Amino acid sequence: MTAQRVAVIGLGSMGSGMAQSLLRAGFAVTGCDVDPATVARFVAADGEGAATPAEAAKDAMVVVSVVVTAAQTETILFGAHGVAESLAKDAVFVSSATMAPEAARALAGSSQAFVKARGALEAMAATIYELGEAPGQGAAFKMINQLLAGVHIAVASEAMAFAARQGLDLKRVYEVITRSAGNSWCFENRMSHVLENDYTPRSAIEIFVKDLGIVEDMARAARFPVPMASTALQLYLMTAAAGMGRDDDSSVARLYAQIAGIDLTGSL
Amino acid sequence: MTAQRVAVIGLGSMGSGMAQSLLRAGFAVTGCDVDPATVARFVAADGEGAATPAEAAKDAMVVVSVVVTAAQTETILFGAHGVAESLAKDAVFVSSATMAPEAARALAGSSQAFVKARGALEAMAATIYELGEAPGQGAAFKMINQLLAGVHIAVASEAMAFAARQGLDLKRVYEVITRSAGNSWCFENRMSHVLENDYTPRSAIEIFVKDLGIVEDMARAARFPVPMASTALQLYLMTAAAGMGRDDDSSVARLYAQIAGIDLTGSL
Repeated sequence: MTAQRVAVIGLGSMGSGMAQSLLRAGFAVTGCDVDPATVARFVAADGEGAATPAEAAKDAMVVVSVVVTAAQTETILFGAHGVAESLAKDAVFVSSATMAPEAARALAGSSQAFVKARGALEAMAATIYELGEAPGQGAAFKMINQLLAGVHIAVASEAMAFAARQGLDLKRVYEVITRSAGNSWCFENRMSHVLENDYTPRSAIEIFVKDLGIVEDMARAARFPVPMASTALQLYLMTAAAGMGRDDDSSVARLYAQIAGIDLTGSL
Repeated sequence: MTAQRVAVIGLGSMGSGMAQSLLRAGFAVTGCDVDPATVARFVAADGEGAATPAEAAKDAMVVVSVVVTAAQTETILFGAHGVAESLAKDAVFVSSATMAPEAARALAGSSQAFVKARGALEAMAATIYELGEAPGQGAAFKMINQLLAGVHIAVASEAMAFAARQGLDLKRVYEVITRSAGNSWCFENRMSHVLENDYTPRSAIEIFVKDLGIVEDMARAARFPVPMASTALQLYLMTAAAGMGRDDDSSVARLYAQIAGIDLTGSL
């Protein structure tokens, strides 16, 4: 019996992790990325490589797109050498980009697609939520999550830098807060980067410039005020303006540190 | 052997819980509150009552003050019929109000006090942190926690109301977010109040008007910008201005709902 083939298009930090999970689960995986060196690394790690989305999709039953924006997703599908040129009629396309529900609706597939993708989804995810048949529901839930996460990282950065300004021991602050009512998943995850002084992008500032931008667009269209998301977006924009757009999103803490002339490494 | 006596001054939602914990741990507990009916309830629940802080402190080795502000704490200590009038020389005063580190320093006791209070603290707390000998350190840590919690409740409210505006099932939003990267302790705790449409104050809007006010005062004095805390404070002020200052702090969600004319009870 031949392993079912899955194509993963976009081998960034998320895409490469998902591709590795699929390999571990026994799928045959074809990887594709705009950067040939990234594809070569995936091939060296037991994957197969493809030069274009059309080539990657050729024999795949499931094509997983792990790019950043709705526009990139459209290009992968319908651009030159796109997935649409070669995708089998009974195959399924899984979009992982965070996008406005409206954009997701414009690309919508059938609800049977969920059934076909299930095996691959189970290989990549700890928990799978089916959020209803109406296209765009998943995107809407994701935007609520991004609103919260974007604000949580911004306030975690503000709180850590303010603690440093007050002369507190930041390791102790981390220890106390992560066991207190002020904790968030993002505080715990991102402030460890700050304590290690490591701003290698696991997820970049530009991602929240995009995602909170989508939140603002959606909210403005719905005539709904989002002052918390809006303030956080301004902080991501300031951090990008200060030259840290491609760095880890915990760099908001470095922005505060730069502005106030404080040290976040604990060597006060 | 007679049980050690602890006085608890201020029998609100926190103080009464702490007094009950002390009783369960075998301490003799004297309760005191500005509201005689509250004291009567405590006496009915196996406590002893006192009419003034001085009376409560008389035979106590540990006096725990569970009021809201630094000013109230000072009145309890040094006002008419205050604790200072009757407190034994070797007894210890534990202040639980959230206050600026400067105010805490002005009221500071000795570091040996921690040792004396330890038994009572262990009866009241799941985890005890000793944050250094310098007075005001505990208060500074608490303000960092309040900055985070205040923002988390505000953004949780914004996100839930925005989800309702998008037509999402709020029970499902709660289920998904509490297992996702957008979760916070406050989201999980406070949004259950919103889903139950129960705004009985566990902790009131006015508490965060005070606590984020202290954060702003401290930050302004230190010339440190806190845009996230500042935006959240404005939302608590708006909620108080709309007449909900004494309601549960999750009432920020009701403010958004009122503004946007949406229903948070799920009956869309």
